[in-house]
Amino acid sequence: MTDDAIDLTDRANFAFFTDVTVRYSDQDELGHINNCSYVAYVEAGRVRFLGGFLDPEKYPGIDFILARVAVNYLKEAHYPGVMEIGTRILKLGRKSMTTGYGLFKDGECVATAESVNVFFHTGTRETIEVPPDVRASLESDPLQKSRAG
Amino acid sequence: MTDDAIDLTDRANFAFFTDVTVRYSDQDELGHINNCSYVAYVEAGRVRFLGGFLDPEKYPGIDFILARVAVNYLKEAHYPGVMEIGTRILKLGRKSMTTGYGLFKDGECVATAESVNVFFHTGTRETIEVPPDVRASLESDPLQKSRAG
Amino acid sequence: MTDDAIDLTDRANFAFFTDVTVRYSDQDELGHINNCSYVAYVEAGRVRFLGGFLDPEKYPGIDFILARVAVNYLKEAHYPGVMEIGTRILKLGRKSMTTGYGLFKDGECVATAESVNVFFHTGTRETIEVPPDVRASLESDPLQKSRAG
Amino acid sequence: MTDDAIDLTDRANFAFFTDVTVRYSDQDELGHINNCSYVAYVEAGRVRFLGGFLDPEKYPGIDFILARVAVNYLKEAHYPGVMEIGTRILKLGRKSMTTGYGLFKDGECVATAESVNVFFHTGTRETIEVPPDVRASLESDPLQKSRAG
Repeated sequence: MTDDAIDLTDRANFAFFTDVTVRYSDQDELGHINNCSYVAYVEAGRVRFLGGFLDPEKYPGIDFILARVAVNYLKEAHYPGVMEIGTRILKLGRKSMTTGYGLFKDGECVATAESVNVFFHTGTRETIEVPPDVRASLESDPLQKSRAG
Repeated sequence: MTDDAIDLTDRANFAFFTDVTVRYSDQDELGHINNCSYVAYVEAGRVRFLGGFLDPEKYPGIDFILARVAVNYLKEAHYPGVMEIGTRILKLGRKSMTTGYGLFKDGECVATAESVNVFFHTGTRETIEVPPDVRASLESDPLQKSRAG
Repeated sequence: MTDDAIDLTDRANFAFFTDVTVRYSDQDELGHINNCSYVAYVEAGRVRFLGGFLDPEKYPGIDFILARVAVNYLKEAHYPGVMEIGTRILKLGRKSMTTGYGLFKDGECVATAESVNVFFHTGTRETIEVPPDVRASLESDPLQKSRAG
Repeated sequence: MTDDAIDLTDRANFAFFTDVTVRYSDQDELGHINNCSYVAYVEAGRVRFLGGFLDPEKYPGIDFILARVAVNYLKEAHYPGVMEIGTRILKLGRKSMTTGYGLFKDGECVATAESVNVFFHTGTRETIEVPPDVRASLESDPLQKSRAG
Protein backbone atom coordinates (compact mmCIF):
# COMPACT_ATOMS: atom_id res chain seq x y z
CA MET A 1 0.00 0.00 0.00
CA THR A 2 1.68 3.17 -1.17
CA ASP A 3 -0.10 6.47 -1.40
CA ASP A 4 2.72 8.95 -1.71
CA ALA A 5 0.91 10.88 -4.42
CA ILE A 6 -2.05 11.83 -2.26
CA ASP A 7 -2.69 15.56 -2.19
CA LEU A 8 -2.65 16.42 1.49
CA THR A 9 -3.89 19.95 0.85
CA ASP A 10 -7.26 18.56 -0.28
CA ARG A 11 -9.78 18.02 2.52
CA ALA A 12 -11.53 15.41 0.40
CA ASN A 13 -8.55 13.11 0.94
CA PHE A 14 -9.21 12.85 4.67
CA ALA A 15 -11.99 11.09 6.54
CA PHE A 16 -10.59 11.58 10.05
CA PHE A 17 -10.31 15.07 11.53
CA THR A 18 -9.13 16.34 14.91
CA ASP A 19 -9.91 19.91 15.99
CA VAL A 20 -7.45 21.88 18.12
CA THR A 21 -8.03 25.34 19.54
CA VAL A 22 -5.27 27.76 18.61
CA ARG A 23 -3.87 29.43 21.75
CA TYR A 24 -2.56 32.95 22.20
CA SER A 25 0.71 31.41 23.35
CA ASP A 26 1.02 29.57 20.01
CA GLN A 27 2.03 32.83 18.38
CA ASP A 28 5.60 33.97 17.85
CA GLU A 29 7.02 37.45 17.87
CA LEU A 30 5.81 38.07 14.31
CA GLY A 31 2.17 37.46 15.26
CA HIS A 32 2.05 34.18 13.30
CA ILE A 33 1.32 30.78 14.71
CA ASN A 34 4.82 29.56 15.58
CA ASN A 35 6.21 26.62 13.60
CA CYS A 36 6.57 24.57 16.79
CA SER A 37 2.85 24.81 17.46
CA TYR A 38 2.10 23.02 14.18
CA VAL A 39 4.03 20.02 15.43
CA ALA A 40 1.80 19.94 18.52
CA TYR A 41 -1.24 20.07 16.23
CA VAL A 42 0.16 17.21 14.15
CA GLU A 43 0.74 15.25 17.35
CA ALA A 44 -2.83 15.93 18.46
CA GLY A 45 -4.05 14.45 15.19
CA ARG A 46 -1.62 11.53 15.26
CA VAL A 47 -2.35 10.45 18.82
CA ARG A 48 -6.11 10.50 18.21
CA PHE A 49 -5.81 8.73 14.88
CA LEU A 50 -3.30 6.06 15.85
CA GLY A 51 -4.79 5.58 19.29
CA GLY A 52 -7.26 3.04 17.98
CA PHE A 53 -4.86 0.90 15.97
CA LEU A 54 -3.33 -1.24 18.65
CA ASP A 55 -5.67 -2.88 21.11
CA PRO A 56 -3.36 -3.53 24.10
CA GLU A 57 -5.32 -6.66 25.04
CA LYS A 58 -4.96 -8.11 21.55
CA TYR A 59 -1.33 -7.04 21.06
CA PRO A 60 0.30 -7.00 24.49
CA GLY A 61 3.78 -5.58 24.42
CA ILE A 62 3.50 -4.08 20.96
CA ASP A 63 3.77 -0.36 20.45
CA PHE A 64 4.97 2.08 17.82
CA ILE A 65 7.43 4.86 18.30
CA LEU A 66 7.76 8.07 16.40
CA ALA A 67 10.76 8.03 14.05
CA ARG A 68 10.17 11.13 11.96
CA VAL A 69 7.97 14.19 11.58
CA ALA A 70 8.10 16.61 8.65
CA VAL A 71 5.94 19.72 8.33
CA ASN A 72 5.49 21.85 5.20
CA TYR A 73 4.42 25.39 6.03
CA LEU A 74 2.22 26.64 3.20
CA LYS A 75 0.55 29.79 4.51
CA GLU A 76 0.92 31.99 7.55
CA ALA A 77 -1.86 31.28 9.99
CA HIS A 78 -3.08 33.40 12.86
CA TYR A 79 -4.65 33.31 16.29
CA PRO A 80 -7.51 32.93 17.19
CA GLY A 81 -9.53 30.05 15.81
CA VAL A 82 -9.53 26.31 15.35
CA MET A 83 -7.00 24.18 13.49
CA GLU A 84 -8.55 21.12 11.87
CA ILE A 85 -6.07 18.31 11.39
CA GLY A 86 -6.94 15.74 8.74
CA THR A 87 -5.06 12.47 9.28
CA ARG A 88 -4.69 9.33 7.17
CA ILE A 89 -2.31 6.47 6.48
CA LEU A 90 -0.03 7.14 3.51
CA LYS A 91 2.10 4.04 3.41
CA LEU A 92 2.41 0.76 5.26
CA GLY A 93 5.91 -0.68 5.30
CA ARG A 94 7.19 -3.96 6.68
CA LYS A 95 7.90 -2.51 10.12
CA SER A 96 6.68 1.04 9.78
CA MET A 97 3.70 3.19 8.98
CA THR A 98 3.67 6.61 7.34
CA THR A 99 0.83 8.95 8.28
CA GLY A 100 -0.16 12.06 6.30
CA TYR A 101 -1.73 15.25 7.60
CA GLY A 102 -3.48 18.30 6.21
CA LEU A 103 -3.86 21.27 8.56
CA PHE A 104 -6.81 23.50 7.75
CA LYS A 105 -7.74 26.86 9.22
CA ASP A 106 -10.56 29.12 8.11
CA GLY A 107 -11.21 26.84 5.16
CA GLU A 108 -7.64 26.88 3.82
CA CYS A 109 -4.85 24.34 4.00
CA VAL A 110 -2.06 26.10 5.90
CA ALA A 111 0.32 23.15 6.25
CA THR A 112 0.80 19.49 5.42
CA ALA A 113 2.84 16.95 7.34
CA GLU A 114 4.05 13.40 7.38
CA SER A 115 5.15 11.19 10.22
CA VAL A 116 6.72 7.75 10.40
CA ASN A 117 6.08 5.34 13.24
CA VAL A 118 8.00 2.11 13.72
CA PHE A 119 6.51 -0.95 15.42
CA PHE A 120 8.52 -2.40 18.27
CA HIS A 121 8.21 -4.81 21.17
CA THR A 122 8.13 -3.10 24.53
CA GLY A 123 9.83 -6.11 26.15
CA THR A 124 12.76 -6.67 23.80
CA ARG A 125 12.84 -2.98 22.74
CA GLU A 126 13.42 -4.24 19.19
CA THR A 127 11.59 -3.28 16.04
CA ILE A 128 9.08 -5.81 14.76
CA GLU A 129 6.94 -6.32 11.67
CA VAL A 130 3.49 -4.77 11.50
CA PRO A 131 1.13 -7.26 13.19
CA PRO A 132 -0.88 -9.13 10.49
CA ASP A 133 -4.26 -8.10 11.83
CA VAL A 134 -3.29 -4.43 11.89
CA ARG A 135 -2.02 -4.76 8.33
CA ALA A 136 -5.17 -6.54 7.17
CA SER A 137 -7.35 -3.95 8.82
CA LEU A 138 -5.47 -1.10 7.19
CA GLU A 139 -5.37 -2.67 3.76
CA SER A 140 -9.07 -3.46 3.77
CA ASP A 141 -9.84 0.20 4.33
CA PRO A 142 -7.62 2.00 1.84
CA LEU A 143 -9.45 5.29 2.25
CA GLN A 144 -8.95 5.19 6.01
CA LYS A 145 -12.54 6.16 6.54
CA SER A 146 -12.19 5.03 10.10
CA ARG A 147 -9.46 4.18 12.51
CA ALA A 148 -8.63 0.52 12.71
CA GLY A 149 -9.68 -1.04 15.97
CA MET B 1 -16.16 47.06 43.11
CA THR B 2 -14.70 44.23 45.14
CA ASP B 3 -15.67 40.62 44.64
CA ASP B 4 -12.91 38.73 46.38
CA ALA B 5 -15.38 36.36 47.97
CA ILE B 6 -16.69 34.97 44.68
CA ASP B 7 -16.47 31.19 44.50
CA LEU B 8 -14.49 30.54 41.33
CA THR B 9 -15.17 26.81 41.48
CA ASP B 10 -18.86 27.46 40.75
CA ARG B 11 -19.77 27.66 37.06
CA ALA B 12 -22.79 29.77 37.93
CA ASN B 13 -20.44 32.62 38.79
CA PHE B 14 -19.25 32.95 35.20
CA ALA B 15 -21.05 34.23 32.14
CA PHE B 16 -18.08 34.20 29.77
CA PHE B 17 -16.44 30.91 28.79
CA THR B 18 -13.56 30.06 26.47
CA ASP B 19 -13.01 26.47 25.32
CA VAL B 20 -9.50 25.14 24.75
CA THR B 21 -8.64 21.69 23.39
CA VAL B 22 -6.26 19.81 25.68
CA ARG B 23 -3.24 18.60 23.68
CA TYR B 24 -1.22 15.44 24.10
CA SER B 25 1.84 17.65 24.61
CA ASP B 26 0.13 19.34 27.57
CA GLN B 27 0.84 16.27 29.66
CA ASP B 28 3.84 15.82 31.89
CA GLU B 29 5.74 12.67 32.75
CA LEU B 30 3.12 11.65 35.29
CA GLY B 31 0.34 11.60 32.69
CA HIS B 32 -1.34 14.69 34.16
CA ILE B 33 -1.93 17.94 32.40
CA ASN B 34 1.23 19.87 33.27
CA ASN B 35 0.90 22.90 35.53
CA CYS B 36 2.36 25.14 32.81
CA SER B 37 -0.47 24.22 30.45
CA TYR B 38 -3.03 25.66 32.86
CA VAL B 39 -1.35 29.03 32.56
CA ALA B 40 -1.78 28.84 28.78
CA TYR B 41 -5.47 28.01 29.32
CA VAL B 42 -5.83 30.98 31.66
CA GLU B 43 -4.15 33.17 29.05
CA ALA B 44 -6.55 31.87 26.40
CA GLY B 45 -9.45 32.92 28.59
CA ARG B 46 -7.91 36.25 29.56
CA VAL B 47 -7.04 37.36 26.04
CA ARG B 48 -10.52 36.56 24.75
CA PHE B 49 -12.21 38.18 27.73
CA LEU B 50 -10.12 41.34 27.96
CA GLY B 51 -9.84 41.70 24.20
CA GLY B 52 -13.08 43.63 24.05
CA PHE B 53 -12.39 46.07 26.86
CA LEU B 54 -10.21 48.63 25.16
CA ASP B 55 -11.36 49.91 21.81
CA PRO B 56 -8.07 51.15 20.28
CA GLU B 57 -9.90 53.90 18.37
CA LYS B 58 -11.55 55.18 21.51
CA TYR B 59 -8.50 54.82 23.74
CA PRO B 60 -5.44 55.29 21.54
CA GLY B 61 -2.21 54.56 23.35
CA ILE B 62 -3.83 52.85 26.31
CA ASP B 63 -3.11 49.23 27.06
CA PHE B 64 -2.88 46.92 30.05
CA ILE B 65 -0.01 44.69 30.95
CA LEU B 66 -0.01 41.51 32.92
CA ALA B 67 1.41 42.02 36.41
CA ARG B 68 0.49 38.76 38.12
CA VAL B 69 -0.97 35.31 37.53
CA ALA B 70 -1.81 32.81 40.27
CA VAL B 71 -3.21 29.34 39.67
CA ASN B 72 -4.68 27.00 42.30
CA TYR B 73 -4.51 23.37 41.24
CA LEU B 74 -7.52 21.57 42.72
CA LYS B 75 -7.70 18.23 40.91
CA GLU B 76 -5.49 16.29 38.55
CA ALA B 77 -6.83 16.60 35.03
CA HIS B 78 -6.07 14.42 32.04
CA TYR B 79 -5.78 14.38 28.27
CA PRO B 80 -7.88 14.24 26.08
CA GLY B 81 -10.82 16.60 26.17
CA VAL B 82 -11.75 20.24 26.39
CA MET B 83 -10.91 22.72 29.13
CA GLU B 84 -13.61 25.33 29.66
CA ILE B 85 -12.27 28.55 31.14
CA GLY B 86 -14.78 30.75 32.90
CA THR B 87 -13.55 34.35 33.17
CA ARG B 88 -14.85 37.40 35.03
CA ILE B 89 -13.71 40.62 36.66
CA LEU B 90 -13.05 40.26 40.37
CA LYS B 91 -11.89 43.70 41.35
CA LEU B 92 -11.39 47.06 39.73
CA GLY B 93 -8.65 49.14 41.34
CA ARG B 94 -7.54 52.67 40.59
CA LYS B 95 -4.99 51.61 37.98
CA SER B 96 -5.49 47.86 37.85
CA MET B 97 -8.03 45.15 37.21
CA THR B 98 -8.17 41.68 38.80
CA THR B 99 -9.68 38.89 36.72
CA GLY B 100 -10.89 35.56 38.13
CA TYR B 101 -10.98 32.19 36.39
CA GLY B 102 -12.56 28.79 36.91
CA LEU B 103 -11.16 25.92 34.82
CA PHE B 104 -13.65 23.14 34.22
CA LYS B 105 -13.07 19.74 32.65
CA ASP B 106 -15.59 16.93 32.36
CA GLY B 107 -17.99 18.89 34.52
CA GLU B 108 -15.59 19.47 37.42
CA CYS B 109 -13.61 22.50 38.48
CA VAL B 110 -9.97 21.40 38.26
CA ALA B 111 -8.33 24.79 38.95
CA THR B 112 -9.04 28.40 39.73
CA ALA B 113 -6.87 31.39 38.90
CA GLU B 114 -6.50 35.11 39.28
CA SER B 115 -4.62 37.64 37.21
CA VAL B 116 -3.86 41.31 37.66
CA ASN B 117 -3.50 43.70 34.75
CA VAL B 118 -2.26 47.27 35.10
CA PHE B 119 -3.32 50.06 32.75
CA PHE B 120 -0.52 52.02 31.16
CA HIS B 121 0.13 54.49 28.38
CA THR B 122 2.04 52.99 25.48
CA GLY B 123 3.66 56.35 24.74
CA THR B 124 4.92 57.35 28.17
CA ARG B 125 5.20 53.68 29.33
CA GLU B 126 3.74 54.84 32.65
CA THR B 127 0.85 53.36 34.56
CA ILE B 128 -2.41 55.29 34.33
CA GLU B 129 -5.81 55.22 35.98
CA VAL B 130 -8.54 53.00 34.54
CA PRO B 131 -10.23 55.08 31.80
CA PRO B 132 -13.60 56.40 33.12
CA ASP B 133 -15.64 54.79 30.35
CA VAL B 134 -14.08 51.39 30.97
CA ARG B 135 -14.76 51.77 34.68
CA ALA B 136 -18.36 52.86 34.09
CA SER B 137 -18.94 49.99 31.72
CA LEU B 138 -17.55 47.48 34.17
CA GLU B 139 -19.42 48.87 37.16
CA SER B 140 -22.73 48.92 35.32
CA ASP B 141 -22.42 45.19 34.65
CA PRO B 142 -21.39 43.77 38.02
CA LEU B 143 -22.08 40.19 36.96
CA GLN B 144 -19.86 40.57 33.90
CA LYS B 145 -22.49 38.96 31.77
CA SER B 146 -20.72 40.30 28.77
CA ARG B 147 -17.40 41.81 27.91
CA ALA B 148 -17.33 45.59 28.01
CA GLY B 149 -16.87 47.23 24.65
CA MET C 1 9.58 28.74 60.04
CA THR C 2 8.03 31.68 58.26
CA ASP C 3 9.91 33.90 55.89
CA ASP C 4 7.17 35.75 54.09
CA ALA C 5 9.06 39.02 54.27
CA ILE C 6 12.01 37.82 52.24
CA ASP C 7 12.77 40.07 49.28
CA LEU C 8 12.69 37.71 46.29
CA THR C 9 14.05 40.37 43.95
CA ASP C 10 17.40 40.27 45.80
CA ARG C 11 19.85 37.67 44.54
CA ALA C 12 21.55 37.63 47.92
CA ASN C 13 18.49 35.90 49.34
CA PHE C 14 19.08 32.79 47.23
CA ALA C 15 21.75 30.13 47.47
CA PHE C 16 20.32 27.74 44.90
CA PHE C 17 20.13 28.75 41.24
CA THR C 18 18.94 26.94 38.11
CA ASP C 19 19.83 28.29 34.66
CA VAL C 20 17.40 27.93 31.76
CA THR C 21 18.07 28.95 28.16
CA VAL C 22 15.41 31.29 26.81
CA ARG C 23 14.02 29.93 23.52
CA TYR C 24 12.82 31.80 20.48
CA SER C 25 9.47 30.05 20.91
CA ASP C 26 9.16 31.53 24.42
CA GLN C 27 8.28 34.87 22.88
CA ASP C 28 4.78 36.13 22.27
CA GLU C 29 3.48 38.33 19.49
CA LEU C 30 4.77 41.44 21.24
CA GLY C 31 8.36 40.20 21.20
CA HIS C 32 8.42 39.67 24.98
CA ILE C 33 8.99 36.44 26.76
CA ASN C 34 5.45 35.11 27.13
CA ASN C 35 3.99 34.88 30.64
CA CYS C 36 3.49 31.13 30.24
CA SER C 37 7.22 30.63 29.70
CA TYR C 38 7.95 32.06 33.15
CA VAL C 39 5.92 29.28 34.69
CA ALA C 40 8.07 26.74 32.88
CA TYR C 41 11.17 28.52 34.25
CA VAL C 42 9.71 28.39 37.76
CA GLU C 43 9.00 24.69 37.28
CA ALA C 44 12.57 24.13 36.12
CA GLY C 45 13.79 25.71 39.35
CA ARG C 46 11.27 23.94 41.55
CA VAL C 47 11.90 20.46 40.18
CA ARG C 48 15.66 20.83 40.59
CA PHE C 49 15.36 22.35 44.05
CA LEU C 50 12.75 20.01 45.50
CA GLY C 51 14.18 16.97 43.75
CA GLY C 52 16.56 16.34 46.61
CA PHE C 53 14.12 16.68 49.51
CA LEU C 54 12.47 13.31 49.50
CA ASP C 55 14.72 10.28 49.31
CA PRO C 56 12.35 7.62 47.91
CA GLU C 57 14.17 4.87 49.83
CA LYS C 58 13.82 6.71 53.10
CA TYR C 59 10.26 7.88 52.53
CA PRO C 60 8.58 5.27 50.34
CA GLY C 61 5.13 6.32 49.21
CA ILE C 62 5.52 9.96 50.18
CA ASP C 63 5.39 12.67 47.57
CA PHE C 64 4.30 16.27 47.27
CA ILE C 65 1.94 17.73 44.73
CA LEU C 66 1.75 21.22 43.40
CA ALA C 67 -1.21 23.11 44.84
CA ARG C 68 -0.49 26.68 43.73
CA VAL C 69 1.83 28.78 41.59
CA ALA C 70 1.84 32.60 41.52
CA VAL C 71 4.11 34.71 39.32
CA ASN C 72 4.68 38.46 39.62
CA TYR C 73 5.85 39.98 36.34
CA LEU C 74 8.13 42.90 37.16
CA LYS C 75 9.90 43.77 33.92
CA GLU C 76 9.55 42.79 30.29
CA ALA C 77 12.26 40.33 29.36
CA HIS C 78 13.51 39.38 25.95
CA TYR C 79 15.02 36.58 23.90
CA PRO C 80 17.86 35.52 23.67
CA GLY C 81 19.79 34.75 26.84
CA VAL C 82 19.67 32.78 30.04
CA MET C 83 17.11 33.00 32.83
CA GLU C 84 18.58 32.32 36.27
CA ILE C 85 16.00 31.03 38.72
CA GLY C 86 16.83 31.48 42.39
CA THR C 87 14.83 29.09 44.58
CA ARG C 88 14.38 28.79 48.35
CA ILE C 89 11.92 27.66 50.98
CA LEU C 90 9.70 30.45 52.25
CA LYS C 91 7.48 28.68 54.71
CA LEU C 92 7.04 25.23 56.14
CA GLY C 93 3.46 24.44 57.18
CA ARG C 94 2.05 21.37 58.87
CA LYS C 95 1.35 19.57 55.60
CA SER C 96 2.69 22.00 53.04
CA MET C 97 5.77 23.85 51.91
CA THR C 98 5.94 27.26 50.24
CA THR C 99 8.83 27.88 47.86
CA GLY C 100 9.97 31.33 46.68
CA TYR C 101 11.63 32.24 43.39
CA GLY C 102 13.50 35.16 41.91
CA LEU C 103 13.95 35.17 38.12
CA PHE C 104 16.99 37.07 36.94
CA LYS C 105 18.00 37.98 33.39
CA ASP C 106 20.92 40.16 32.37
CA GLY C 107 21.53 41.03 36.01
CA GLU C 108 18.00 42.22 36.75
CA CYS C 109 15.11 40.59 38.58
CA VAL C 110 12.35 40.31 35.96
CA ALA C 111 9.87 38.27 38.02
CA THR C 112 9.27 36.67 41.39
CA ALA C 113 7.13 33.66 42.14
CA GLU C 114 5.78 31.46 44.90
CA SER C 115 4.56 27.90 44.82
CA VAL C 116 2.87 25.68 47.39
CA ASN C 117 3.38 21.93 47.52
CA VAL C 118 1.35 19.62 49.72
CA PHE C 119 2.71 16.36 51.10
CA PHE C 120 0.61 13.29 50.43
CA HIS C 121 0.79 9.51 50.54
CA THR C 122 0.86 7.92 47.12
CA GLY C 123 -0.96 4.85 48.43
CA THR C 124 -3.86 6.44 50.28
CA ARG C 125 -3.79 9.56 48.05
CA GLU C 126 -4.36 11.58 51.25
CA THR C 127 -2.45 14.59 52.46
CA ILE C 128 -0.01 13.93 55.29
CA GLU C 129 2.16 15.97 57.64
CA VAL C 130 5.65 16.95 56.58
CA PRO C 131 7.92 14.00 57.55
CA PRO C 132 9.88 14.90 60.72
CA ASP C 133 13.28 14.37 59.12
CA VAL C 134 12.45 16.63 56.20
CA ARG C 135 11.20 19.26 58.65
CA ALA C 136 14.30 18.96 60.82
CA SER C 137 16.56 19.18 57.83
CA LEU C 138 14.81 22.30 56.53
CA GLU C 139 14.72 24.02 59.92
CA SER C 140 18.39 23.40 60.58
CA ASP C 141 19.29 25.20 57.37
CA PRO C 142 17.16 28.34 57.49
CA LEU C 143 19.10 30.00 54.67
CA GLN C 144 18.55 26.99 52.42
CA LYS C 145 22.15 27.11 51.37
CA SER C 146 21.68 23.64 50.02
CA ARG C 147 18.87 21.33 49.19
CA ALA C 148 17.90 18.96 51.96
CA GLY C 149 18.69 15.39 51.24
CA MET D 1 26.49 23.77 -3.40
CA THR D 2 24.92 20.47 -2.43
CA ASP D 3 25.80 18.60 0.69
CA ASP D 4 22.96 16.14 1.05
CA ALA D 5 25.32 13.34 1.96
CA ILE D 6 26.63 14.99 5.11
CA ASP D 7 26.28 12.79 8.18
CA LEU D 8 24.33 14.93 10.62
CA THR D 9 24.89 12.47 13.46
CA ASP D 10 28.61 13.32 13.47
CA ARG D 11 29.59 16.29 15.63
CA ALA D 12 32.65 16.82 13.47
CA ASN D 13 30.39 18.00 10.66
CA PHE D 14 29.28 21.05 12.64
CA ALA D 15 31.17 24.19 13.57
CA PHE D 16 28.24 26.12 15.01
CA PHE D 17 26.51 24.91 18.18
CA THR D 18 23.64 26.30 20.24
CA ASP D 19 22.99 24.97 23.76
CA VAL D 20 19.47 24.71 25.11
CA THR D 21 18.51 23.65 28.63
CA VAL D 22 16.03 20.78 28.65
CA ARG D 23 13.00 21.69 30.78
CA TYR D 24 10.87 19.47 32.96
CA SER D 25 7.87 20.56 30.89
CA ASP D 26 9.59 19.23 27.74
CA GLN D 27 8.74 15.71 28.83
CA ASP D 28 5.69 13.78 27.74
CA GLU D 29 3.67 11.23 29.66
CA LEU D 30 6.22 8.51 28.92
CA GLY D 31 9.02 10.41 30.62
CA HIS D 32 10.79 11.13 27.31
CA ILE D 33 11.51 14.50 25.86
CA ASN D 34 8.41 15.13 23.75
CA ASN D 35 8.81 15.24 19.97
CA CYS D 36 7.46 18.80 19.89
CA SER D 37 10.29 19.98 22.13
CA TYR D 38 12.86 18.90 19.54
CA VAL D 39 11.32 21.30 17.07
CA ALA D 40 11.79 24.12 19.57
CA TYR D 41 15.45 23.05 19.95
CA VAL D 42 15.86 23.06 16.17
CA GLU D 43 14.31 26.51 16.06
CA ALA D 44 16.69 27.71 18.77
CA GLY D 45 19.60 26.55 16.61
CA ARG D 46 18.16 27.91 13.39
CA VAL D 47 17.37 31.38 14.71
CA ARG D 48 20.85 31.76 16.19
CA PHE D 49 22.54 30.38 13.10
CA LEU D 50 20.56 32.24 10.45
CA GLY D 51 20.34 35.41 12.52
CA GLY D 52 23.64 36.63 11.16
CA PHE D 53 23.00 35.99 7.47
CA LEU D 54 20.92 38.97 6.52
CA ASP D 55 22.15 42.35 7.63
CA PRO D 56 18.94 44.42 7.57
CA GLU D 57 20.89 47.57 6.67
CA LYS D 58 22.53 45.86 3.73
CA TYR D 59 19.43 44.00 2.56
CA PRO D 60 16.43 46.11 3.51
CA GLY D 61 13.15 44.35 2.89
CA ILE D 62 14.67 40.93 2.40
CA ASP D 63 13.82 38.12 4.75
CA PHE D 64 13.48 34.35 4.68
CA ILE D 65 10.50 32.35 5.80
CA LEU D 66 10.39 28.82 7.05
CA ALA D 67 8.92 26.45 4.46
CA ARG D 68 9.70 23.05 5.97
CA VAL D 69 11.06 21.33 9.05
CA ALA D 70 11.77 17.59 9.30
CA VAL D 71 13.05 15.86 12.42
CA ASN D 72 14.41 12.31 12.65
CA TYR D 73 14.14 10.88 16.15
CA LEU D 74 17.05 8.50 16.69
CA LYS D 75 17.16 7.83 20.43
CA GLU D 76 14.93 8.55 23.37
CA ALA D 77 16.32 11.45 25.36
CA HIS D 78 15.54 12.45 28.91
CA TYR D 79 15.31 15.40 31.28
CA PRO D 80 17.44 16.96 32.79
CA GLY D 81 20.47 18.25 30.93
CA VAL D 82 21.52 20.32 27.96
CA MET D 83 20.71 19.73 24.30
CA GLU D 84 23.48 20.85 21.96
CA ILE D 85 22.21 21.75 18.51
CA GLY D 86 24.77 21.64 15.70
CA THR D 87 23.66 23.72 12.72
CA ARG D 88 25.03 24.11 9.19
CA ILE D 89 23.98 24.89 5.64
CA LEU D 90 23.24 21.76 3.60
CA LYS D 91 22.18 23.19 0.29
CA LEU D 92 21.81 26.57 -1.33
CA GLY D 93 19.13 26.71 -4.00
CA ARG D 94 18.14 29.53 -6.31
CA LYS D 95 15.61 30.98 -3.89
CA SER D 96 15.98 28.73 -0.89
CA MET D 97 18.42 27.45 1.68
CA THR D 98 18.44 24.06 3.39
CA THR D 99 19.89 23.89 6.89
CA GLY D 100 20.97 20.68 8.64
CA TYR D 101 20.97 19.93 12.37
CA GLY D 102 22.42 17.37 14.72
CA LEU D 103 20.97 17.26 18.25
CA PHE D 104 23.37 15.92 20.84
CA LYS D 105 22.70 15.05 24.47
CA ASP D 106 25.14 13.44 26.88
CA GLY D 107 27.56 12.89 24.04
CA GLU D 108 25.14 11.07 21.74
CA CYS D 109 23.25 12.18 18.68
CA VAL D 110 19.57 11.80 19.61
CA ALA D 111 18.05 13.41 16.53
CA THR D 112 18.85 15.04 13.21
CA ALA D 113 16.79 17.62 11.36
CA GLU D 114 16.54 19.65 8.20
CA SER D 115 14.78 22.89 7.48
CA VAL D 116 14.13 24.86 4.32
CA ASN D 117 13.91 28.64 4.28
CA VAL D 118 12.77 30.62 1.25
CA PHE D 119 13.96 34.16 0.56
CA PHE D 120 11.26 36.73 -0.04
CA HIS D 121 10.73 40.45 -0.22
CA THR D 122 8.82 41.85 2.72
CA GLY D 123 7.31 44.57 0.54
CA THR D 124 6.02 42.53 -2.40
CA ARG D 125 5.61 39.38 -0.26
CA GLU D 126 7.05 37.46 -3.23
CA THR D 127 9.88 34.95 -3.22
CA ILE D 128 13.20 36.22 -4.54
CA GLU D 129 16.57 34.77 -5.44
CA VAL D 130 19.24 34.44 -2.78
CA PRO D 131 21.05 37.81 -2.67
CA PRO D 132 24.43 37.51 -4.46
CA ASP D 133 26.46 38.59 -1.43
CA VAL D 134 24.78 36.04 0.81
CA ARG D 135 25.41 33.36 -1.79
CA ALA D 136 29.04 34.39 -2.20
CA SER D 137 29.56 34.45 1.53
CA LEU D 138 28.06 30.99 1.94
CA GLU D 139 29.94 29.46 -0.97
CA SER D 140 33.27 30.84 0.18
CA ASP D 141 32.85 29.06 3.52
CA PRO D 142 31.72 25.58 2.56
CA LEU D 143 32.33 24.18 6.03
CA GLN D 144 30.18 26.88 7.58
CA LYS D 145 32.79 27.43 10.23
CA SER D 146 31.09 30.69 11.02
CA ARG D 147 27.84 32.40 10.32
CA ALA D 148 27.89 34.69 7.33
CA GLY D 149 27.53 38.34 8.19
